[in-house]
Amino acid sequence: MEFSRRHALAGAAALAASPLISAAPARAAVPLADKQAPSFYRYKIGDAQVNAISDGASTFPLPDSLVLNVKKDEVNAALERAFMPKDKMTIHFAPLVINTGGKLVVIDTGNGPGAFASSKGNVGQFTSNMTAAGFDPKAVDTVVISHFHGDHINGLLTADGAATFPNAEVLVPAVEWKYWMDDGEMSRAPAGRMADQFKNIRRIFDAGLKKKVTPYEWGKDVAPGLLAVESIGHTPGHTSYVLSSGSDKLFIQSDVTNHPALFAVNPGWHLMFDQDPAQAETTRRKVYDMLVADRMRVQGFHYPFPANGFVEKDGNGYRLVPAPWSPVI
Amino acid sequence: MEFSRRHALAGAAALAASPLISAAPARAAVPLADKQAPSFYRYKIGDAQVNAISDGASTFPLPDSLVLNVKKDEVNAALERAFMPKDKMTIHFAPLVINTGGKLVVIDTGNGPGAFASSKGNVGQFTSNMTAAGFDPKAVDTVVISHFHGDHINGLLTADGAATFPNAEVLVPAVEWKYWMDDGEMSRAPAGRMADQFKNIRRIFDAGLKKKVTPYEWGKDVAPGLLAVESIGHTPGHTSYVLSSGSDKLFIQSDVTNHPALFAVNPGWHLMFDQDPAQAETTRRKVYDMLVADRMRVQGFHYPFPANGFVEKDGNGYRLVPAPWSPVI
Repeated sequence: MEFSRRHALAGAAALAASPLISAAPARAAVPLADKQAPSFYRYKIGDAQVNAISDGASTFPLPDSLVLNVKKDEVNAALERAFMPKDKMTIHFAPLVINTGGKLVVIDTGNGPGAFASSKGNVGQFTSNMTAAGFDPKAVDTVVISHFHGDHINGLLTADGAATFPNAEVLVPAVEWKYWMDDGEMSRAPAGRMADQFKNIRRIFDAGLKKKVTPYEWGKDVAPGLLAVESIGHTPGHTSYVLSSGSDKLFIQSDVTNHPALFAVNPGWHLMFDQDPAQAETTRRKVYDMLVADRMRVQGFHYPFPANGFVEKDGNGYRLVPAPWSPVI
Repeated sequence: MEFSRRHALAGAAALAASPLISAAPARAAVPLADKQAPSFYRYKIGDAQVNAISDGASTFPLPDSLVLNVKKDEVNAALERAFMPKDKMTIHFAPLVINTGGKLVVIDTGNGPGAFASSKGNVGQFTSNMTAAGFDPKAVDTVVISHFHGDHINGLLTADGAATFPNAEVLVPAVEWKYWMDDGEMSRAPAGRMADQFKNIRRIFDAGLKKKVTPYEWGKDVAPGLLAVESIGHTPGHTSYVLSSGSDKLFIQSDVTNHPALFAVNPGWHLMFDQDPAQAETTRRKVYDMLVADRMRVQGFHYPFPANGFVEKDGNGYRLVPAPWSPVI
């Protein structure tokens, strides 16, 4: 039996006495990589191709009131059970690019260039990851918006305030549009987060897009095979989608739950970002019961990337079972 | 309120009556992407950087005896509970590139170029994905082999039969080396899988590497911070590792379980590829009880990509909780 030169030189006794590593030949160290893999992932639903494109993730100290109806300790316990660090929260953002075969459709647009700058690149990665995935924002036919929170609409504009998707029609939920563009609602919004949201929404749609949007109704296709379905509570016009192609179906939940380790496991927990928490809970239970009954694959905007899987019942709540990553499409 | 030109032209009534999609302007369809994202993923353990690099995945009809001690129906039921298709099995392969800061270390090498050709690219992707991740095979200092099954060693050689990692020392478990290089053991191996394994191992290490390997002992570091630990059963010299840096630790299990949805959930199931199934079960229970007790992150060669997470106890078995993908390192 012939071993390597080093082993032969060291001899069996010396080898046993000293760690192997000490005799390794000198070589310049390879620098540590400074960039994650471009975070996109593709899968097929029938003839359509779904591309989950990461906009990045945001980590922040756990607010006292992330969950309105349970104590912070209980939230920390749930984080720990899910092997997540205590006293902070990481939320991921996953807009979609769907190629229906005929149309290139974006669903939601991420936190946008302002957030990219202020977060030092942690969020606002949608267009760069989309480009890494081979998609030119100019080639997008349709942008579908699920609701008007900043992490879904701010990517509609470039850093210069121009349209990020200059050739795309922008489709918005009619109910959402009516609510947020109503000056009376805006005037009655409490100062702080609600008033800020109205302001941000006007910035995007008035100043930015000059109101060039097309409102859509629930129960109708917004793109080939992409059905808009009402899933209100998170916002007044919050919308989910069913993508169908052949016999294959995908439920695109948008923000029916935030992180599944907290809000699928505990569907009765009320997230501070749910505008009507009781209605959001009703929607959540209805949607997740349907996902369990139909065993339908689900894509979630705030699920851990690549943000899709299946839902099973677990005690009084639900568990997301991530779909396995396939290294080929 | 000003809507888009199309909406204005169509009018609200017409819009309500017809799907939005019918009036979309003509545009050349963007072709469907034909390639998955390069499947690599990086994370830190202390100062070390772990890169899970996909070698691809193999899908095959469910053998009658994939699990020796349960009926095929029961395996199918477990697949279905895990939202995996029945009557077939997909196994993923995830070699590692670890940058310790000083050394570039590969653990296991995937199915190799022959399998790439015969599988039409489904497996044998390790070196191409490694290159996509920015690593030059020539820069690898050390290749550590966990055991001698083909999906772990065949990537040691290029299609021409040369060393894939020409500047690397190849470290092999001493016990594994002794067993498979023993001519008496080879002569007693039953025809079929066992005899084929001996032949393949000799092809790689005799004909290919001219026996230029360094055997290593359990309980010693094989690279800075990388401790080799005995985890026999799958093969006579099967090895796992603990990577430590600062207070951070990762257990690299190699093949202590195959797919966790089958063999972590059911640690008593005996995989047809476990050479000593009873010993493999003993090892599996010991390792998984330790992972639960220590809440240690674990990387598994056959876990779904990116093949790492945490283990929780679930009834009589265990559940792998995938670590969330971080879009930044």
